[in-house]
Amino acid sequence: MAELTEYQGPASMEKITSLAKRRGFVFQSSEIYGGQNGAWDYGPLGIELKNRIAANWWKEMTQLHDEIVGLDAAILMHPRTWEASGHVENFTDPLADCKKCKNRFRTDMIPEENLKKKICPECGGELTDTRKFNLMFKTHIGPTEDNAGLIYLRPETAQGIYVNYKNIIQSSRMKIPFGIAQIGKAFRNEIVTKNFIFRTCEFEQMEMQYFVKPGTDVDWFNEWKKRRWAYYEKLGVKMDHLRWHQHGPGELAHYAKDAYDIEYLFPMGWRELEGIHNRTNYDLTRHTEYSGKDLQYIDQDNNNDRYIPFIIETSAGLTRTLLMLICDAYDEEKVALEKNTGETEGSADDWRTVLRFHPAVAPITAAILPLMKKDGLAELAQDIRNELKEDFTTDYDQAGAIGRRYRRQDEAGTPFCVTVDYQSKDDGTVTLRYRDSMEQVRLPRAALAEKIRQEIKGYKRN
Amino acid sequence: MAELTEYQGPASMEKITSLAKRRGFVFQSSEIYGGQNGAWDYGPLGIELKNRIAANWWKEMTQLHDEIVGLDAAILMHPRTWEASGHVENFTDPLADCKKCKNRFRTDMIPEENLKKKICPECGGELTDTRKFNLMFKTHIGPTEDNAGLIYLRPETAQGIYVNYKNIIQSSRMKIPFGIAQIGKAFRNEIVTKNFIFRTCEFEQMEMQYFVKPGTDVDWFNEWKKRRWAYYEKLGVKMDHLRWHQHGPGELAHYAKDAYDIEYLFPMGWRELEGIHNRTNYDLTRHTEYSGKDLQYIDQDNNNDRYIPFIIETSAGLTRTLLMLICDAYDEEKVALEKNTGETEGSADDWRTVLRFHPAVAPITAAILPLMKKDGLAELAQDIRNELKEDFTTDYDQAGAIGRRYRRQDEAGTPFCVTVDYQSKDDGTVTLRYRDSMEQVRLPRAALAEKIRQEIKGYKRN
Repeated sequence: MAELTEYQGPASMEKITSLAKRRGFVFQSSEIYGGQNGAWDYGPLGIELKNRIAANWWKEMTQLHDEIVGLDAAILMHPRTWEASGHVENFTDPLADCKKCKNRFRTDMIPEENLKKKICPECGGELTDTRKFNLMFKTHIGPTEDNAGLIYLRPETAQGIYVNYKNIIQSSRMKIPFGIAQIGKAFRNEIVTKNFIFRTCEFEQMEMQYFVKPGTDVDWFNEWKKRRWAYYEKLGVKMDHLRWHQHGPGELAHYAKDAYDIEYLFPMGWRELEGIHNRTNYDLTRHTEYSGKDLQYIDQDNNNDRYIPFIIETSAGLTRTLLMLICDAYDEEKVALEKNTGETEGSADDWRTVLRFHPAVAPITAAILPLMKKDGLAELAQDIRNELKEDFTTDYDQAGAIGRRYRRQDEAGTPFCVTVDYQSKDDGTVTLRYRDSMEQVRLPRAALAEKIRQEIKGYKRN
Repeated sequence: MAELTEYQGPASMEKITSLAKRRGFVFQSSEIYGGQNGAWDYGPLGIELKNRIAANWWKEMTQLHDEIVGLDAAILMHPRTWEASGHVENFTDPLADCKKCKNRFRTDMIPEENLKKKICPECGGELTDTRKFNLMFKTHIGPTEDNAGLIYLRPETAQGIYVNYKNIIQSSRMKIPFGIAQIGKAFRNEIVTKNFIFRTCEFEQMEMQYFVKPGTDVDWFNEWKKRRWAYYEKLGVKMDHLRWHQHGPGELAHYAKDAYDIEYLFPMGWRELEGIHNRTNYDLTRHTEYSGKDLQYIDQDNNNDRYIPFIIETSAGLTRTLLMLICDAYDEEKVALEKNTGETEGSADDWRTVLRFHPAVAPITAAILPLMKKDGLAELAQDIRNELKEDFTTDYDQAGAIGRRYRRQDEAGTPFCVTVDYQSKDDGTVTLRYRDSMEQVRLPRAALAEKIRQEIKGYKRN
């Protein structure tokens, strides 16, 4: 597939941000107090989308992989963890202040010219020396604020997996190769000012650490590259909006032997979506050294061979995936008049905004809409909703013209509308309206749940 | 039902803690570094149980309640939030130090005699004056550690709902009465040393805030007491292990008009499991005052009446519910020889430990066990597993005697074992073995998934 060079779809970050707020996907954190920089709140549609992304990833990684189990480690870890991982020493940004205008800069982000002459890129004033600023949030546990109680908010979830890997081998009787999957929050004290929820101080990771025998790591690295690529295909993401980016020598983290990012073409350009890393035996070797514990794997099937496993990591952002899926799903189109809406030429908007989410992750699976409130249609529709809501996330809407209500559901990404009309009262059938094609089919009410289940399983994006 | 006065079941906190570690429900956080006090990690079985409790609560509160929507607010909120909520001023423990032995005490927990005489309850040395110690974890955002960047880790999730309530009304067109549900982490810098995961510095809440018209609050309070009680009944919890505890005047929080706890009889005694609180209009009034924003509800169906809603809160601990469910499910029993295990008198353990989880929350739904590894039984069993794992969390175990394997699944709380034997090869039937009764039924392989689904829906605990 030819690689796109720049984003050409109908979305823009402005449209996405505005839709996200208007429809309750994402709100600014603490908005009534002017907002908290770097943090965002997920509204009714946003948390449903987020929960489904998480559940979908979790199912893919644990339920469908016999050799991968889950873990949920605490955010607050023993501080030695971060000495061992190298974060205390290396997880820093280089900063300098302007003595004149008092602005602060990441010195790796300003022109080299300014840095060499130590002059401010904003006002030309004198810059202070560059100093390393650690990106971990610090706090204190226990009643005093001295070093004894100093702990960090984890800057990545991976270390929680490494320090538990022996516990998991013992309790779950895992044999190499095996993986540990985890979804959880991490925190980085970064200066973030743009691109909405793309980069935030508080974010959520979906990580899987795969423990393999040294020497098999390159093969497993390639295998996980394939699997993770296939995952996005299964999710129905536009595949010409994905590409690989291999880390060059200057980009590779100190622990990595090889690293590829899956990049997505966001409205603001190509950006990292997920990283697949060959972390070697670096982390477990460091934890061995710092904890004094023997973290070697004992290969009982091979003469009790002992070795520190190599680790292949797949690391995706949950909230970043959410942003990607909204951008990917976003569409605008000119539409003809919809069937059975009673619309006449010129009476309805002839443009619609539609979020073409895969039905497996759409926040609302089905909306039940009575054609009219009167004549018992509302009661019948509510009755149908009560039946469906045992199995699906549903919405009910009786307010306004039916065409307008379809548009509202399109904008929320609801793949199925169930319309209840006068015929429904007579023969027990309802109309199932498809979000993507706007086609409508009539079917008996009793067949609805199974039909929706099949449509979710068999969904293919055009 | 007569109220039990003390715990009489087979569990003890020691047994629960040991089982939890051995089987991978809960590990000590950062164990290889000696552990991080107040934090715990959830292993493969623990996170599956936790995810199911959360999903079950979420479904109950949002999917099945038309008038309740979800939210997921950030842990890092604007610090004014905690001034408005009263936490900066009031969320404190009274502490004093012993000048001699250097121990530190919560002065509300030591004998009044000692406090009056200001002598240490441990060594008789002199105590310092009592001072208020705030339980919120502090950290700094941005590159300096001054007051400008001071923020807190939220000590409760509720405030994230209050500051968003107008956003949600607007984006989701909610009308009073309506609720907002949230599951998320909260942090309290408490000294915790016992009772396993019952009280921790890092924990997870499942909260629902219900916004009602003033004057209807008492009725809604009673309604939510009923609904939450019924919830535990539906979960299959031993109802004689639950009781109500009404907060007396001395216990009531400053914002509360009335408060009831649902208490559960843990092995260490009756303890709070969930609180139902009438928080009045306290929080929204304070946020109005501190933010300067108009947080009145406009009742469009009643002449645009304006008022600050009253709030009924139901607040449960997710990780505490997990502990409760393990205690509640824990059973030991003397068993007769099991059918079809090939066991003979004296060949098997005649006691079993079994976790009688409701199948809807059990970490593993079905374990597939070939009677023998050989003769193609292992392959057939794996094939059946591959079919089932699309819909259920499954385990596969071919190691050791079948009776021993049943016991392992009993201890993990797996409600269904599917056994594949020689007859399976001949006629395509398998054995479904029930955890609770240890009964076995034969059925065609093709009928398995639907049978399991029905058994989950129809489950009743004896």
